[in-house]
Amino acid sequence: MVNIRNRPIGIFDSGIGGLTVLREMKRLLPHEDLVYFGDTARVPYGTKSRETVQRYSVQIARFLKTKRIKMLVVACNTASAYSIDVLQKRFSFPVSGVIVSGVKAALSYTRNGRIAVIGTEGTIQSGSYRKALMTRKDVSGGSGAVKYYRGMACPLFVPLVEEGWFDGKITEDIARIYLAAVKNSKCDTLILGCTHYPLLKKIIRKVVGPTVAIVDSAYETAVNVRKILGNKGLLRTRSAKGVQRYYVSDAPEKFCTIGRLFLKEKIRNISLKHLN
Amino acid sequence: MVNIRNRPIGIFDSGIGGLTVLREMKRLLPHEDLVYFGDTARVPYGTKSRETVQRYSVQIARFLKTKRIKMLVVACNTASAYSIDVLQKRFSFPVSGVIVSGVKAALSYTRNGRIAVIGTEGTIQSGSYRKALMTRKDVSGGSGAVKYYRGMACPLFVPLVEEGWFDGKITEDIARIYLAAVKNSKCDTLILGCTHYPLLKKIIRKVVGPTVAIVDSAYETAVNVRKILGNKGLLRTRSAKGVQRYYVSDAPEKFCTIGRLFLKEKIRNISLKHLN
Repeated sequence: MVNIRNRPIGIFDSGIGGLTVLREMKRLLPHEDLVYFGDTARVPYGTKSRETVQRYSVQIARFLKTKRIKMLVVACNTASAYSIDVLQKRFSFPVSGVIVSGVKAALSYTRNGRIAVIGTEGTIQSGSYRKALMTRKDVSGGSGAVKYYRGMACPLFVPLVEEGWFDGKITEDIARIYLAAVKNSKCDTLILGCTHYPLLKKIIRKVVGPTVAIVDSAYETAVNVRKILGNKGLLRTRSAKGVQRYYVSDAPEKFCTIGRLFLKEKIRNISLKHLN
Repeated sequence: MVNIRNRPIGIFDSGIGGLTVLREMKRLLPHEDLVYFGDTARVPYGTKSRETVQRYSVQIARFLKTKRIKMLVVACNTASAYSIDVLQKRFSFPVSGVIVSGVKAALSYTRNGRIAVIGTEGTIQSGSYRKALMTRKDVSGGSGAVKYYRGMACPLFVPLVEEGWFDGKITEDIARIYLAAVKNSKCDTLILGCTHYPLLKKIIRKVVGPTVAIVDSAYETAVNVRKILGNKGLLRTRSAKGVQRYYVSDAPEKFCTIGRLFLKEKIRNISLKHLN
Protein backbone atom coordinates (compact mmCIF):
# COMPACT_ATOMS: atom_id res chain seq x y z
CA MET A 1 0.00 0.00 0.00
CA VAL A 2 1.32 3.42 -0.99
CA ASN A 3 1.80 5.71 1.96
CA ILE A 4 -0.55 8.63 1.49
CA ARG A 5 1.93 10.88 3.32
CA ASN A 6 4.33 10.61 0.39
CA ARG A 7 1.84 11.99 -2.10
CA PRO A 8 2.25 15.56 -3.37
CA ILE A 9 0.30 18.64 -2.36
CA GLY A 10 -1.61 20.30 -5.21
CA ILE A 11 -1.63 24.10 -5.51
CA PHE A 12 -3.45 26.15 -8.10
CA ASP A 13 -3.80 29.75 -9.11
CA SER A 14 -5.32 31.65 -12.01
CA GLY A 15 -1.78 32.31 -13.17
CA ILE A 16 1.53 33.15 -11.65
CA GLY A 17 0.66 34.91 -8.37
CA GLY A 18 0.23 31.64 -6.49
CA LEU A 19 3.97 31.17 -6.70
CA THR A 20 4.25 33.42 -3.63
CA VAL A 21 2.26 30.71 -1.81
CA LEU A 22 4.33 27.88 -3.27
CA ARG A 23 7.48 29.69 -2.21
CA GLU A 24 6.36 29.90 1.42
CA MET A 25 5.24 26.24 1.35
CA LYS A 26 8.61 25.20 0.01
CA ARG A 27 10.22 27.08 2.88
CA LEU A 28 7.95 25.81 5.66
CA LEU A 29 7.37 22.30 4.27
CA PRO A 30 10.72 21.44 2.67
CA HIS A 31 10.06 17.67 2.49
CA GLU A 32 6.79 17.90 0.60
CA ASP A 33 6.41 17.37 -3.14
CA LEU A 34 4.41 20.18 -4.71
CA VAL A 35 2.39 20.16 -7.96
CA TYR A 36 1.44 23.64 -9.16
CA PHE A 37 -1.16 24.45 -11.79
CA GLY A 38 -1.28 28.00 -13.22
CA ASP A 39 -4.27 28.69 -15.45
CA THR A 40 -2.31 31.15 -17.61
CA ALA A 41 -4.63 30.70 -20.59
CA ARG A 42 -7.56 32.08 -18.62
CA VAL A 43 -5.92 34.52 -16.22
CA PRO A 44 -7.21 36.75 -14.60
CA TYR A 45 -10.04 35.26 -12.55
CA GLY A 46 -10.69 38.55 -10.72
CA THR A 47 -12.88 39.91 -13.51
CA LYS A 48 -14.86 36.69 -14.08
CA SER A 49 -18.20 35.57 -12.68
CA ARG A 50 -18.67 33.14 -9.79
CA GLU A 51 -20.02 30.39 -12.09
CA THR A 52 -17.08 30.60 -14.47
CA VAL A 53 -14.47 30.57 -11.70
CA GLN A 54 -16.17 27.55 -10.09
CA ARG A 55 -16.20 25.70 -13.39
CA TYR A 56 -12.50 26.38 -13.95
CA SER A 57 -11.60 25.40 -10.36
CA VAL A 58 -13.33 22.03 -10.68
CA GLN A 59 -11.56 21.35 -14.00
CA ILE A 60 -8.20 22.07 -12.38
CA ALA A 61 -8.91 20.02 -9.24
CA ARG A 62 -9.88 17.09 -11.49
CA PHE A 63 -6.55 17.37 -13.28
CA LEU A 64 -4.57 17.60 -10.02
CA LYS A 65 -6.47 14.58 -8.71
CA THR A 66 -4.85 12.55 -11.51
CA LYS A 67 -1.52 13.51 -9.90
CA ARG A 68 -2.72 11.72 -6.71
CA ILE A 69 -2.51 14.76 -4.45
CA LYS A 70 -3.12 14.39 -0.70
CA MET A 71 -4.36 17.97 -0.28
CA LEU A 72 -5.42 20.89 -2.48
CA VAL A 73 -4.39 24.49 -1.80
CA VAL A 74 -6.32 27.21 -3.61
CA ALA A 75 -3.63 29.87 -3.97
CA CYS A 76 -5.87 32.32 -5.79
CA ASN A 77 -8.05 34.75 -3.88
CA THR A 78 -10.86 34.84 -6.41
CA ALA A 79 -11.06 31.04 -6.57
CA SER A 80 -10.84 30.89 -2.76
CA ALA A 81 -13.75 33.32 -2.61
CA TYR A 82 -15.94 31.40 -5.04
CA SER A 83 -14.89 27.75 -5.18
CA ILE A 84 -13.78 26.33 -1.80
CA ASP A 85 -17.25 25.01 -0.87
CA VAL A 86 -17.80 23.44 -4.28
CA LEU A 87 -14.37 21.76 -4.19
CA GLN A 88 -14.85 20.48 -0.64
CA LYS A 89 -18.14 18.90 -1.67
CA ARG A 90 -16.80 17.32 -4.86
CA PHE A 91 -13.44 15.93 -3.71
CA SER A 92 -12.37 13.73 -0.82
CA PHE A 93 -8.95 15.31 -0.11
CA PRO A 94 -8.72 18.33 2.22
CA VAL A 95 -9.08 21.70 0.46
CA SER A 96 -7.86 24.98 1.89
CA GLY A 97 -7.37 28.45 0.52
CA VAL A 98 -5.70 31.79 1.01
CA ILE A 99 -8.77 33.57 2.39
CA VAL A 100 -9.34 31.44 5.48
CA SER A 101 -5.61 31.55 6.24
CA GLY A 102 -5.39 35.33 5.94
CA VAL A 103 -8.53 35.84 7.98
CA LYS A 104 -7.33 33.60 10.83
CA ALA A 105 -4.06 35.52 11.00
CA ALA A 106 -5.73 38.94 10.85
CA LEU A 107 -8.06 38.01 13.71
CA SER A 108 -5.09 37.04 15.83
CA TYR A 109 -3.20 40.27 15.03
CA THR A 110 -5.86 42.94 15.43
CA ARG A 111 -6.13 44.82 18.69
CA ASN A 112 -8.87 47.31 17.80
CA GLY A 113 -11.04 44.96 15.67
CA ARG A 114 -10.72 47.19 12.57
CA ILE A 115 -9.49 45.21 9.56
CA ALA A 116 -8.88 46.30 5.96
CA VAL A 117 -8.48 44.05 2.93
CA ILE A 118 -7.03 44.94 -0.48
CA GLY A 119 -7.48 42.71 -3.52
CA THR A 120 -8.78 42.42 -7.08
CA GLU A 121 -12.23 43.69 -7.98
CA GLY A 122 -13.60 40.13 -8.01
CA THR A 123 -12.25 39.30 -4.56
CA ILE A 124 -13.50 42.51 -2.94
CA GLN A 125 -16.90 42.51 -4.66
CA SER A 126 -17.51 38.89 -3.69
CA GLY A 127 -17.62 40.07 -0.07
CA SER A 128 -15.90 36.85 0.97
CA TYR A 129 -13.31 38.45 3.24
CA ARG A 130 -16.03 40.50 4.92
CA LYS A 131 -18.16 37.41 5.47
CA ALA A 132 -15.22 35.33 6.67
CA LEU A 133 -14.06 38.06 9.07
CA MET A 134 -17.51 38.75 10.45
CA THR A 135 -18.42 35.14 11.17
CA ARG A 136 -15.19 33.90 12.79
CA LYS A 137 -14.72 34.34 16.48
CA ASP A 138 -11.95 31.85 17.19
CA VAL A 139 -9.43 34.54 17.95
CA SER A 140 -6.37 33.70 19.98
CA GLY A 141 -4.74 36.76 21.48
CA GLY A 142 -6.88 39.20 19.51
CA SER A 143 -9.80 41.41 20.42
CA GLY A 144 -12.33 38.67 19.78
CA ALA A 145 -14.60 40.39 17.29
CA VAL A 146 -14.38 42.43 14.12
CA LYS A 147 -15.91 45.85 14.68
CA TYR A 148 -15.16 47.36 11.28
CA TYR A 149 -14.30 46.04 7.84
CA ARG A 150 -12.98 48.01 4.89
CA GLY A 151 -12.42 46.39 1.46
CA MET A 152 -10.59 48.15 -1.35
CA ALA A 153 -10.06 46.92 -4.94
CA CYS A 154 -6.65 47.83 -6.43
CA PRO A 155 -6.85 46.76 -10.11
CA LEU A 156 -3.54 48.38 -11.11
CA PHE A 157 -1.42 46.48 -8.57
CA VAL A 158 -1.27 43.22 -10.56
CA PRO A 159 -0.07 44.84 -13.82
CA LEU A 160 2.41 46.95 -11.81
CA VAL A 161 3.90 43.76 -10.31
CA GLU A 162 3.98 42.03 -13.69
CA GLU A 163 5.80 45.08 -15.12
CA GLY A 164 8.34 44.62 -12.31
CA TRP A 165 7.58 48.13 -10.99
CA PHE A 166 7.83 47.07 -7.34
CA ASP A 167 8.88 50.51 -6.17
CA GLY A 168 9.38 54.01 -7.52
CA LYS A 169 7.24 57.14 -7.57
CA ILE A 170 4.41 55.98 -9.86
CA THR A 171 3.77 52.81 -7.85
CA GLU A 172 3.86 54.83 -4.64
CA ASP A 173 1.44 57.44 -6.05
CA ILE A 174 -0.99 54.71 -7.10
CA ALA A 175 -0.64 52.99 -3.70
CA ARG A 176 -1.40 56.30 -1.96
CA ILE A 177 -4.64 56.66 -3.95
CA TYR A 178 -5.79 53.10 -3.27
CA LEU A 179 -4.74 53.09 0.38
CA ALA A 180 -6.01 56.55 1.39
CA ALA A 181 -9.33 55.14 2.59
CA VAL A 182 -7.53 52.35 4.46
CA LYS A 183 -5.31 54.90 6.24
CA ASN A 184 -8.30 57.06 7.18
CA SER A 185 -10.26 54.10 8.48
CA LYS A 186 -8.04 53.59 11.57
CA CYS A 187 -7.68 49.89 10.78
CA ASP A 188 -4.73 48.34 12.65
CA THR A 189 -4.53 45.29 10.34
CA LEU A 190 -4.32 45.09 6.53
CA ILE A 191 -4.75 41.81 4.66
CA LEU A 192 -2.97 41.52 1.30
CA GLY A 193 -5.88 39.75 -0.38
CA CYS A 194 -4.09 39.01 -3.67
CA THR A 195 -1.09 36.75 -4.16
CA HIS A 196 0.73 39.37 -6.25
CA TYR A 197 0.71 41.93 -3.48
CA PRO A 198 3.50 40.53 -1.25
CA LEU A 199 5.86 41.83 -3.94
CA LEU A 200 4.61 45.37 -3.21
CA LYS A 201 4.91 44.95 0.56
CA LYS A 202 7.75 47.47 0.93
CA ILE A 203 5.77 50.29 -0.71
CA ILE A 204 2.54 49.33 1.04
CA ARG A 205 4.43 49.44 4.35
CA LYS A 206 5.78 52.89 3.47
CA VAL A 207 2.29 54.18 2.66
CA VAL A 208 0.34 52.73 5.61
CA GLY A 209 3.08 53.41 8.17
CA PRO A 210 4.78 51.20 10.78
CA THR A 211 1.85 50.62 13.14
CA VAL A 212 -0.46 48.66 10.79
CA ALA A 213 -0.01 44.86 10.83
CA ILE A 214 0.31 43.62 7.24
CA VAL A 215 -1.01 40.08 6.75
CA ASP A 216 0.83 38.24 3.98
CA SER A 217 -1.68 35.53 2.99
CA ALA A 218 0.99 33.54 1.15
CA TYR A 219 2.94 32.99 4.36
CA GLU A 220 -0.18 32.43 6.46
CA THR A 221 -1.45 29.83 3.98
CA ALA A 222 1.75 27.81 4.28
CA VAL A 223 1.41 27.94 8.09
CA ASN A 224 -2.20 26.77 7.84
CA VAL A 225 -1.42 23.92 5.41
CA ARG A 226 1.29 22.64 7.78
CA LYS A 227 -1.22 22.68 10.61
CA ILE A 228 -3.94 20.83 8.64
CA LEU A 229 -1.56 18.12 7.41
CA GLY A 230 -0.10 17.79 10.92
CA ASN A 231 -3.54 17.36 12.49
CA LYS A 232 -4.41 14.64 9.97
CA GLY A 233 -1.06 12.85 10.35
CA LEU A 234 -0.31 13.53 6.69
CA LEU A 235 2.99 15.40 6.97
CA ARG A 236 5.85 13.80 5.13
CA THR A 237 8.60 13.19 7.64
CA ARG A 238 11.39 11.50 5.75
CA SER A 239 14.38 13.73 5.24
CA ALA A 240 14.51 13.82 1.40
CA LYS A 241 14.04 17.25 -0.17
CA GLY A 242 10.67 17.72 -1.86
CA VAL A 243 10.39 18.35 -5.60
CA GLN A 244 8.26 20.88 -7.46
CA ARG A 245 6.35 20.21 -10.65
CA TYR A 246 4.61 22.95 -12.66
CA TYR A 247 1.77 22.84 -15.19
CA VAL A 248 0.39 25.86 -17.04
CA SER A 249 -2.46 26.14 -19.52
CA ASP A 250 -0.52 28.55 -21.76
CA ALA A 251 2.86 30.18 -22.49
CA PRO A 252 5.28 28.23 -20.23
CA GLU A 253 8.27 30.38 -21.28
CA LYS A 254 6.58 33.56 -20.11
CA PHE A 255 5.61 31.82 -16.86
CA CYS A 256 9.27 30.97 -16.30
CA THR A 257 10.44 34.53 -17.00
CA ILE A 258 7.98 36.35 -14.73
CA GLY A 259 7.87 33.41 -12.28
CA ARG A 260 11.50 34.00 -11.44
CA LEU A 261 10.52 37.39 -9.97
CA PHE A 262 8.11 35.60 -7.64
CA LEU A 263 10.15 32.54 -6.77
CA LYS A 264 13.63 34.11 -6.70
CA GLU A 265 14.95 31.02 -8.42
CA LYS A 266 14.80 29.29 -11.79
CA ILE A 267 11.66 27.27 -12.64
CA ARG A 268 12.26 23.70 -13.83
CA ASN A 269 9.90 20.76 -14.51
CA ILE A 270 7.26 22.75 -16.34
CA SER A 271 4.71 21.40 -18.86
CA LEU A 272 1.89 22.82 -20.94
CA LYS A 273 -1.55 21.35 -20.14
CA HIS A 274 -4.68 22.49 -21.98
CA LEU A 275 -7.85 22.06 -19.95
CA ASN A 276 -10.45 22.83 -22.61
CA MET B 1 -33.37 34.03 -51.97
CA VAL B 2 -32.20 36.04 -48.99
CA ASN B 3 -30.22 39.08 -50.01
CA ILE B 4 -26.70 38.66 -48.65
CA ARG B 5 -26.41 42.45 -48.29
CA ASN B 6 -28.98 42.38 -45.49
CA ARG B 7 -26.94 40.02 -43.36
CA PRO B 8 -25.11 41.39 -40.31
CA ILE B 9 -21.39 42.12 -39.96
CA GLY B 10 -19.66 40.08 -37.24
CA ILE B 11 -17.12 41.79 -34.96
CA PHE B 12 -15.12 40.17 -32.22
CA ASP B 13 -12.66 41.16 -29.54
CA SER B 14 -11.04 39.50 -26.54
CA GLY B 15 -13.31 41.63 -24.39
CA ILE B 16 -14.62 45.12 -24.36
CA GLY B 17 -12.00 47.15 -26.27
CA GLY B 18 -13.47 46.25 -29.65
CA LEU B 19 -16.41 48.47 -28.81
CA THR B 20 -14.31 51.42 -30.01
CA VAL B 21 -14.35 49.70 -33.43
CA LEU B 22 -18.07 48.93 -33.26
CA ARG B 23 -18.74 52.56 -32.37
CA GLU B 24 -16.93 53.84 -35.46
CA MET B 25 -18.67 51.21 -37.63
CA LYS B 26 -22.03 52.30 -36.30
CA ARG B 27 -21.14 55.88 -37.19
CA LEU B 28 -19.77 55.18 -40.68
CA LEU B 29 -22.12 52.30 -41.60
CA PRO B 30 -25.40 53.31 -39.95
CA HIS B 31 -27.60 50.90 -41.98
CA GLU B 32 -25.62 47.77 -41.14
CA ASP B 33 -26.67 45.25 -38.51
CA LEU B 34 -23.74 44.41 -36.22
CA VAL B 35 -23.17 41.27 -34.11
CA TYR B 36 -20.43 41.70 -31.51
CA PHE B 37 -18.75 38.91 -29.58
CA GLY B 38 -16.60 39.82 -26.55
CA ASP B 39 -14.63 36.91 -25.10
CA THR B 40 -14.82 38.31 -21.57
CA ALA B 41 -14.27 34.89 -19.97
CA ARG B 42 -10.83 34.62 -21.54
CA VAL B 43 -9.70 38.25 -21.77
CA PRO B 44 -6.90 39.32 -22.19
CA TYR B 45 -5.46 37.75 -25.34
CA GLY B 46 -2.32 39.92 -25.20
CA THR B 47 -0.58 37.57 -22.76
CA LYS B 48 -1.56 34.33 -24.51
CA SER B 49 0.30 32.24 -27.06
CA ARG B 50 -0.31 32.27 -30.82
CA GLU B 51 -1.83 28.76 -30.77
CA THR B 52 -4.30 29.59 -28.01
CA VAL B 53 -5.41 32.86 -29.62
CA GLN B 54 -5.91 31.08 -32.96
CA ARG B 55 -7.98 28.35 -31.31
CA TYR B 56 -10.19 30.92 -29.58
CA SER B 57 -10.58 33.00 -32.78
CA VAL B 58 -11.78 29.98 -34.77
CA GLN B 59 -14.29 29.06 -32.02
CA ILE B 60 -15.70 32.60 -32.11
CA ALA B 61 -15.82 32.78 -35.92
CA ARG B 62 -17.73 29.48 -35.92
CA PHE B 63 -20.26 30.92 -33.51
CA LEU B 64 -20.66 34.14 -35.53
CA LYS B 65 -21.10 32.05 -38.68
CA THR B 66 -24.28 30.66 -37.10
CA LYS B 67 -25.53 34.28 -37.07
CA ARG B 68 -25.14 34.27 -40.90
CA ILE B 69 -22.65 37.14 -41.02
CA LYS B 70 -21.56 38.55 -44.40
CA MET B 71 -18.16 39.69 -43.14
CA LEU B 72 -15.97 39.24 -40.05
CA VAL B 73 -14.04 42.07 -38.41
CA VAL B 74 -11.29 41.13 -35.96
CA ALA B 75 -11.43 44.09 -33.59
CA CYS B 76 -8.66 42.80 -31.34
CA ASN B 77 -5.04 43.52 -32.12
CA THR B 78 -3.67 40.27 -30.71
CA ALA B 79 -6.17 38.19 -32.68
CA SER B 80 -5.47 40.30 -35.77
CA ALA B 81 -1.78 39.59 -35.30
CA TYR B 82 -2.20 35.83 -34.90
CA SER B 83 -5.44 34.68 -36.51
CA ILE B 84 -6.33 36.57 -39.72
CA ASP B 85 -4.62 34.05 -42.03
CA VAL B 86 -6.17 31.05 -40.27
CA LEU B 87 -9.63 32.63 -40.40
CA GLN B 88 -9.31 33.56 -44.07
CA LYS B 89 -8.37 29.98 -44.90
CA ARG B 90 -11.18 28.42 -42.86
CA PHE B 91 -14.15 30.64 -43.69
CA SER B 92 -15.67 31.84 -46.95
CA PHE B 93 -16.79 35.33 -45.83
CA PRO B 94 -14.28 38.24 -46.03
CA VAL B 95 -12.18 38.69 -42.87
CA SER B 96 -10.41 41.93 -41.98
CA GLY B 97 -8.72 43.25 -38.87
CA VAL B 98 -7.46 46.29 -37.09
CA ILE B 99 -3.79 45.82 -37.99
CA VAL B 100 -4.10 46.04 -41.77
CA SER B 101 -6.41 49.05 -41.41
CA GLY B 102 -4.04 50.90 -39.06
CA VAL B 103 -1.03 50.10 -41.22
CA LYS B 104 -2.69 51.35 -44.42
CA ALA B 105 -3.58 54.63 -42.72
CA ALA B 106 -0.12 55.09 -41.18
CA LEU B 107 1.55 54.56 -44.55
CA SER B 108 -0.62 57.26 -46.05
CA TYR B 109 0.08 59.72 -43.19
CA THR B 110 3.84 59.42 -42.72
CA ARG B 111 6.10 61.93 -44.43
CA ASN B 112 9.48 60.80 -43.05
CA GLY B 113 8.82 57.02 -43.13
CA ARG B 114 9.39 56.66 -39.36
CA ILE B 115 6.43 54.91 -37.70
CA ALA B 116 5.87 53.93 -34.06
CA VAL B 117 3.31 51.46 -32.73
CA ILE B 118 2.10 51.05 -29.15
CA GLY B 119 0.11 48.01 -28.01
CA THR B 120 -0.06 45.08 -25.62
CA GLU B 121 2.94 42.85 -25.08
CA GLY B 122 1.42 40.14 -27.31
CA THR B 123 0.80 42.52 -30.19
CA ILE B 124 4.25 44.10 -30.08
CA GLN B 125 6.16 40.84 -29.52
CA SER B 126 4.34 39.16 -32.39
CA GLY B 127 6.11 41.63 -34.72
CA SER B 128 2.97 41.78 -36.85
CA TYR B 129 2.87 45.54 -37.17
CA ARG B 130 6.54 45.61 -38.09
CA LYS B 131 6.03 42.92 -40.73
CA ALA B 132 2.87 44.57 -42.09
CA LEU B 133 4.55 47.99 -42.26
CA MET B 134 7.73 46.71 -43.86
CA THR B 135 6.04 44.70 -46.61
CA ARG B 136 3.39 47.18 -47.78
CA LYS B 137 4.24 49.65 -50.48
CA ASP B 138 0.79 50.73 -51.66
CA VAL B 139 1.13 54.21 -50.22
CA SER B 140 -1.03 57.00 -51.50
CA GLY B 141 0.39 60.41 -50.66
CA GLY B 142 3.01 59.03 -48.29
CA SER B 143 6.73 58.66 -48.59
CA GLY B 144 6.46 55.23 -50.17
CA ALA B 145 8.56 53.19 -47.77
CA VAL B 146 9.02 52.63 -44.04
CA LYS B 147 12.54 53.60 -43.05
CA TYR B 148 12.23 53.02 -39.32
CA TYR B 149 9.86 51.10 -37.04
CA ARG B 150 9.60 51.38 -33.28
CA GLY B 151 7.25 49.13 -31.25
CA MET B 152 6.50 49.73 -27.59
CA ALA B 153 4.42 47.56 -25.25
CA CYS B 154 2.34 49.54 -22.71
CA PRO B 155 0.84 46.91 -20.35
CA LEU B 156 -0.56 49.44 -17.86
CA PHE B 157 -2.69 51.33 -20.42
CA VAL B 158 -5.52 48.76 -20.53
CA PRO B 159 -6.04 48.62 -16.74
CA LEU B 160 -5.80 52.43 -16.60
CA VAL B 161 -8.62 52.70 -19.16
CA GLU B 162 -10.71 50.09 -17.35
CA GLU B 163 -10.22 52.07 -14.09
CA GLY B 164 -11.57 55.09 -15.98
CA TRP B 165 -8.31 57.00 -15.34
CA PHE B 166 -8.33 58.62 -18.80
CA ASP B 167 -6.39 61.65 -17.62
CA GLY B 168 -4.65 62.97 -14.52
CA LYS B 169 -1.06 63.02 -13.35
CA ILE B 170 -0.47 59.27 -12.84
CA THR B 171 -1.73 58.37 -16.30
CA GLU B 172 0.39 61.14 -17.78
CA ASP B 173 3.50 60.00 -15.83
CA ILE B 174 3.02 56.44 -17.07
CA ALA B 175 2.44 57.65 -20.63
CA ARG B 176 5.66 59.70 -20.45
CA ILE B 177 7.64 56.57 -19.46
CA TYR B 178 6.14 54.41 -22.20
CA LEU B 179 6.32 57.09 -24.89
CA ALA B 180 9.82 58.46 -24.15
CA ALA B 181 11.40 56.13 -26.69
CA VAL B 182 8.73 57.00 -29.24
CA LYS B 183 9.40 60.74 -28.78
CA ASN B 184 13.16 60.27 -29.11
CA SER B 185 12.78 58.15 -32.24
CA LYS B 186 11.67 61.10 -34.43
CA CYS B 187 8.69 59.09 -35.71
CA ASP B 188 6.09 61.35 -37.33
CA THR B 189 3.29 58.77 -37.06
CA LEU B 190 2.07 56.77 -34.05
CA ILE B 191 -0.35 53.84 -34.42
CA LEU B 192 -2.60 53.12 -31.42
CA GLY B 193 -2.24 49.34 -31.72
CA CYS B 194 -4.79 48.43 -29.04
CA THR B 195 -8.50 49.12 -29.11
CA HIS B 196 -8.48 50.54 -25.57
CA TYR B 197 -6.02 53.28 -26.43
CA PRO B 198 -8.33 55.69 -28.31
CA LEU B 199 -9.74 56.50 -24.85
CA LEU B 200 -6.27 57.78 -23.83
CA LYS B 201 -5.82 59.79 -27.03
CA LYS B 202 -5.94 63.17 -25.27
CA ILE B 203 -3.06 62.33 -22.92
CA ILE B 204 -1.09 60.57 -25.64
CA ARG B 205 -1.48 63.70 -27.80
CA LYS B 206 -0.26 65.86 -24.88
CA VAL B 207 2.82 63.67 -24.39
CA VAL B 208 3.88 63.20 -28.03
CA GLY B 209 3.11 66.78 -29.05
CA PRO B 210 1.08 68.26 -31.91
CA THR B 211 3.26 67.24 -34.87
CA VAL B 212 2.92 63.44 -34.60
CA ALA B 213 0.02 61.92 -36.57
CA ILE B 214 -1.93 59.59 -34.26
CA VAL B 215 -3.58 56.69 -36.10
CA ASP B 216 -6.79 55.53 -34.40
CA SER B 217 -7.18 51.95 -35.69
CA ALA B 218 -10.82 51.80 -34.61
CA TYR B 219 -11.75 54.58 -37.01
CA GLU B 220 -9.47 53.30 -39.78
CA THR B 221 -10.98 49.82 -39.49
CA ALA B 222 -14.47 51.18 -40.04
CA VAL B 223 -13.22 53.06 -43.11
CA ASN B 224 -11.60 49.87 -44.41
CA VAL B 225 -14.69 47.70 -43.83
CA ARG B 226 -16.83 50.19 -45.73
CA LYS B 227 -14.40 50.02 -48.61
CA ILE B 228 -14.27 46.18 -48.68
CA LEU B 229 -18.07 45.83 -48.58
CA GLY B 230 -18.43 48.53 -51.21
CA ASN B 231 -15.97 46.79 -53.55
CA LYS B 232 -17.87 43.53 -53.19
CA GLY B 233 -21.29 45.13 -53.64
CA LEU B 234 -22.27 44.01 -50.15
CA LEU B 235 -23.18 47.35 -48.56
CA ARG B 236 -26.69 47.54 -47.22
CA THR B 237 -28.37 50.45 -48.92
CA ARG B 238 -31.92 50.53 -47.61
CA SER B 239 -32.58 53.38 -45.25
CA ALA B 240 -33.57 51.49 -42.08
CA LYS B 241 -31.26 52.00 -39.08
CA GLY B 242 -29.03 49.01 -38.30
CA VAL B 243 -29.34 47.13 -35.00
CA GLN B 244 -26.59 45.92 -32.68
CA ARG B 245 -26.53 42.56 -30.94
CA TYR B 246 -23.95 41.65 -28.28
CA TYR B 247 -22.70 38.30 -26.99
CA VAL B 248 -20.14 37.86 -24.21
CA SER B 249 -18.62 34.71 -22.75
CA ASP B 250 -18.85 36.03 -19.16
CA ALA B 251 -20.23 38.75 -16.88
CA PRO B 252 -22.65 40.66 -19.14
CA GLU B 253 -23.50 43.22 -16.41
CA LYS B 254 -19.88 44.26 -16.07
CA PHE B 255 -19.60 44.48 -19.87
CA CYS B 256 -22.56 46.86 -19.88
CA THR B 257 -21.09 49.05 -17.12
CA ILE B 258 -17.61 49.46 -18.59
CA GLY B 259 -18.93 49.25 -22.15
CA ARG B 260 -20.82 52.48 -21.63
CA LEU B 261 -17.47 54.27 -21.22
CA PHE B 262 -16.46 52.98 -24.66
CA LEU B 263 -19.74 53.33 -26.51
CA LYS B 264 -21.02 56.54 -24.89
CA GLU B 265 -24.48 54.99 -24.81
CA LYS B 266 -26.39 52.21 -23.08
CA ILE B 267 -25.82 48.62 -24.23
CA ARG B 268 -28.97 46.62 -25.06
CA ASN B 269 -29.54 43.20 -26.65
CA ILE B 270 -26.81 41.39 -24.75
CA SER B 271 -26.60 37.62 -24.06
CA LEU B 272 -24.20 35.27 -22.32
CA LYS B 273 -22.66 32.64 -24.59
CA HIS B 274 -20.18 30.06 -23.27
CA LEU B 275 -17.82 28.78 -25.91
CA ASN B 276 -16.12 25.94 -24.00
